[in-house]
Amino acid sequence: MGIRTDLALEAKEIYTESVQDTGDIDGVKVDVDKTEGVTTTKITITNDNGARALSKPIGTYVTIEAPDIKYSTEVYEKACKLLAKEIKNMTDISADTKTLVVGLGNKNITPDALGPDVVSKLMVTNHMREHMKDFFGDNLTSVCAIAPGVLGTTGMETAQIIKGVCQQIHPDLIICVDALASRSLDRISTTIQLSDTGINPGAGVDNNREGLNEKTLGVKVIAIGVPTVVDAHTIVSDSIDIAFNDIQEEIPADWEKNRLIKEALTKNIKKLMVTPKDIDSVIEKTSKTVANGINLALHKNLTFEDIESFVG
Amino acid sequence: MGIRTDLALEAKEIYTESVQDTGDIDGVKVDVDKTEGVTTTKITITNDNGARALSKPIGTYVTIEAPDIKYSTEVYEKACKLLAKEIKNMTDISADTKTLVVGLGNKNITPDALGPDVVSKLMVTNHMREHMKDFFGDNLTSVCAIAPGVLGTTGMETAQIIKGVCQQIHPDLIICVDALASRSLDRISTTIQLSDTGINPGAGVDNNREGLNEKTLGVKVIAIGVPTVVDAHTIVSDSIDIAFNDIQEEIPADWEKNRLIKEALTKNIKKLMVTPKDIDSVIEKTSKTVANGINLALHKNLTFEDIESFVG
Amino acid sequence: MGIRTDLALEAKEIYTESVQDTGDIDGVKVDVDKTEGVTTTKITITNDNGARALSKPIGTYVTIEAPDIKYSTEVYEKACKLLAKEIKNMTDISADTKTLVVGLGNKNITPDALGPDVVSKLMVTNHMREHMKDFFGDNLTSVCAIAPGVLGTTGMETAQIIKGVCQQIHPDLIICVDALASRSLDRISTTIQLSDTGINPGAGVDNNREGLNEKTLGVKVIAIGVPTVVDAHTIVSDSIDIAFNDIQEEIPADWEKNRLIKEALTKNIKKLMVTPKDIDSVIEKTSKTVANGINLALHKNLTFEDIESFVG
Amino acid sequence: MGIRTDLALEAKEIYTESVQDTGDIDGVKVDVDKTEGVTTTKITITNDNGARALSKPIGTYVTIEAPDIKYSTEVYEKACKLLAKEIKNMTDISADTKTLVVGLGNKNITPDALGPDVVSKLMVTNHMREHMKDFFGDNLTSVCAIAPGVLGTTGMETAQIIKGVCQQIHPDLIICVDALASRSLDRISTTIQLSDTGINPGAGVDNNREGLNEKTLGVKVIAIGVPTVVDAHTIVSDSIDIAFNDIQEEIPADWEKNRLIKEALTKNIKKLMVTPKDIDSVIEKTSKTVANGINLALHKNLTFEDIESFVG
Repeated sequence: MGIRTDLALEAKEIYTESVQDTGDIDGVKVDVDKTEGVTTTKITITNDNGARALSKPIGTYVTIEAPDIKYSTEVYEKACKLLAKEIKNMTDISADTKTLVVGLGNKNITPDALGPDVVSKLMVTNHMREHMKDFFGDNLTSVCAIAPGVLGTTGMETAQIIKGVCQQIHPDLIICVDALASRSLDRISTTIQLSDTGINPGAGVDNNREGLNEKTLGVKVIAIGVPTVVDAHTIVSDSIDIAFNDIQEEIPADWEKNRLIKEALTKNIKKLMVTPKDIDSVIEKTSKTVANGINLALHKNLTFEDIESFVG
Repeated sequence: MGIRTDLALEAKEIYTESVQDTGDIDGVKVDVDKTEGVTTTKITITNDNGARALSKPIGTYVTIEAPDIKYSTEVYEKACKLLAKEIKNMTDISADTKTLVVGLGNKNITPDALGPDVVSKLMVTNHMREHMKDFFGDNLTSVCAIAPGVLGTTGMETAQIIKGVCQQIHPDLIICVDALASRSLDRISTTIQLSDTGINPGAGVDNNREGLNEKTLGVKVIAIGVPTVVDAHTIVSDSIDIAFNDIQEEIPADWEKNRLIKEALTKNIKKLMVTPKDIDSVIEKTSKTVANGINLALHKNLTFEDIESFVG
Repeated sequence: MGIRTDLALEAKEIYTESVQDTGDIDGVKVDVDKTEGVTTTKITITNDNGARALSKPIGTYVTIEAPDIKYSTEVYEKACKLLAKEIKNMTDISADTKTLVVGLGNKNITPDALGPDVVSKLMVTNHMREHMKDFFGDNLTSVCAIAPGVLGTTGMETAQIIKGVCQQIHPDLIICVDALASRSLDRISTTIQLSDTGINPGAGVDNNREGLNEKTLGVKVIAIGVPTVVDAHTIVSDSIDIAFNDIQEEIPADWEKNRLIKEALTKNIKKLMVTPKDIDSVIEKTSKTVANGINLALHKNLTFEDIESFVG
Repeated sequence: MGIRTDLALEAKEIYTESVQDTGDIDGVKVDVDKTEGVTTTKITITNDNGARALSKPIGTYVTIEAPDIKYSTEVYEKACKLLAKEIKNMTDISADTKTLVVGLGNKNITPDALGPDVVSKLMVTNHMREHMKDFFGDNLTSVCAIAPGVLGTTGMETAQIIKGVCQQIHPDLIICVDALASRSLDRISTTIQLSDTGINPGAGVDNNREGLNEKTLGVKVIAIGVPTVVDAHTIVSDSIDIAFNDIQEEIPADWEKNRLIKEALTKNIKKLMVTPKDIDSVIEKTSKTVANGINLALHKNLTFEDIESFVG
């Protein structure tokens, strides 16, 4: 289709549009909850048919949509707490859990720096667990974190690096944080996706790359992602589909010519990832939200104010 | 038209497309020169008809296009030297010229930071002119520079700030450097526009804002700009026009439906300035090119190597 | 003396040490107030004798010392509010006051970037005063701000730039923010000095440089500064004086040899401004404190939480 | 001793001063070479006595001192090439060598960011070795790189992370890059130390921390370091020793009082790492020098110009 997205929610939209059938998909379960300006959608892919339809592995994908997160401190706080709640729902964190947080992405490319930025805002405790126990009791669990860099700057597969670290550290849980691509500019920094399937390289071309998931790493891997880029090609091709949908009553049968128009449109736009002009401040704010969510999930009895003053 | 551009070259393209006449425009003169991977286009707007057609003031607009500037150090050096040559063509720099370079834009928003970044790479000499004369003779002219910030962060019209500075400093020449909007992602960081009309706020809505030009400041004002952002709306609307142009043989008469399609397309995309994902490194490289060009133009007998090691 | 300080409080200490008399100084009045971890010292220089003794112009210097500001959020909030209170004490802010805040220093040198950083965190309102009145009534006064750069990067005297801006903007009050030098590493980022004398270049060598004060600019000028650097030479020479003071009972009469030791010590250390290793985070925190103080002083009926969430 | 240094050259000076004997030390061999503004000193510690005297493991320590590296492009180029030569002397690089470069330090604290900055400027080739062979033949060896972060931000011992990575990647050579502490402000960014002993935690307090060396990692480990910080305490205590040395003819026998003076001096200055005010630009330049040296050493037939344009 020429539309690139890392969000299960959008993958489902795209599938629904392509088959022109808004009914249920076999193997895909959807639950929606709206509350105080935040929509939480839980998509569960239960079988191979669902996985094929959405081009995503079997598993659970929770999407938190908070369109006003940039403007409202209430929505921001709500989103942080909801993220923490969903992390706890997806995992089984006890006082003895040791978590490794992996910040994926290239810290020198702003829209790619979400993962490394989140890592720099975490309450990392593993190295002083013993001392902290005296002060905090069982309120703080053991947390390690690393931002390993990307293939182009390290020359190494990220999965290899993390596998090596796991062999030394033996975490009970891995949380990967990554910047995502969306089909829609509106989602940039307003949508958070959480899944229990880890990070999986595209099924097609690059398939010799290893994923970061329970199968490759031997422990549960939670992936948290926020869209920070859109493919320029997707902006155009997506606009076309929406447009033809809007006017299908006026030109329903004109299918052959429509195809011509679509082809002409898409061939004239380069595949180039674009990002909003104010991406620096967007990433700063978004990495606070994600770090707050993780800190609240992993450490008990901390108030939002404690956490917020910690991230800076 | 829904298409936003700050480039005279694109304004001419847009006009040509809108009137569907590729012939000469009364009041618009175009000269093109191609050499070693760099295309230099000089557009001269000579009368009010030309000004109306291109929505730009009467004056000269030189565009340097160097698509391979990111990949080839030869093209990069060529572009720096061509920019210096065109600055000298447009001005009348003598040993006694005092130049004020104004870096426009917001240093905290990466694609907007071109102007401030260029200012930080300039050979500023005004304050030590006397000492330098002993060493350099007449090779260095007097250069001042300021990055005044933007209305939203200063609370003051930039024109007011620069007018006040001019009253104190009395420059002979002003060079304004600014980030521009283009209609095309391909132009980002590969095209440099140079004009003798200064900076002029849009003729329409914001028309109580003062420009930075010879009329308001009392001295010649050269504007140098490089596209760093594209309106997402423009990407889509521009793609549509190109597409319909490509397929006009197949669906020439179908005009009414085409209009419907266009309307549907454009209404579904927000007005939002976007920029490439790797804008940080793009701005770093582009600000070097512009600073090199200005340094070479204002200071005599400096080699490219001198200049390059200075900015780096 | 070889000891460099921009703080009136330290200038008084140095004078007291040099005359070895801890009694009152003619022309220097000192009031100290300690409350909740913050010490506020008001030094008033009332005549020429006091000005000579402290090498500072006649005027009022208020120093807020908060040693625990880095570790305690309570002390941080207290310091912000005290700064706001002292700004209001020193000025006569009404609903119609137009304030220009000037952030001095070089934004590309971290310990020098305090002024520009504070400017980027201010509630700037001058350009939308009219719109804001509808929402805020008289709660927000008119605020402009500029970070003009330094002589070495602009080629222009800062006083000239600000004079030019004042001719255009006509502020009623100017607040200059600058990074200072202290004699003590302990004061870095923990001490804030506020004075009504503006910024005055050293009386000696550079005396052709113009100051930023009521005499040169025609309106009241408040200066706010925070120490961010110490002269390495001062660290050594200051340690010597303290040491000889500590052991004066053991070697009181040995004055000739002591002088030899002092000379040998001081000649072996370069004049070089040094700053703590973690200056990046220090400047971030300190610029928040100063911006909060200014925002609270200039805008009425804002809570600390409003202000704190604004600065980021 | 109260004097902290990571340089073998300074450790030898300190030892020599402490025993007041400038003769040879058993187990320490010193060779000095001066050429074109750069002094290269090779200190070889050959036995346990030498190791104890200098508090460093047995091995080779090469120091490149280039006081004018900041001002002279010739000295800069010379230093880059000398570093490359010394890396090649210390190792046995063939066309098949796979090197892992480890950038130690915290990227968010400027004087600590040398290692991560160098990593971002390396020609990393491991992931595209096969493709590159077609273009470059045996000119490029296989290079990987990682900046793992520090204990305080990762919660993990750096040695553990690197051990894990080595188990996956199997490098033939490891080069660690780190920021060092010196006793002298003059050495900051002007001195490069290269050693074949790797990185070894202090023998005393923190002795449960593992080193990065051939013993722990199983392959040869080269350490490259540049001083970026000085302990304020060291500046003072070092000045005292130099001073008493200077005046030993005048007050040789006055030992008891001298000790009093020294004690009083040193107790009045905090242990606090300081760095020059302009550390941002210092680190930028220094990381280029080190990256150039490594790139030239690991990749054959590259000119200095190729390398220089690559880093930046």
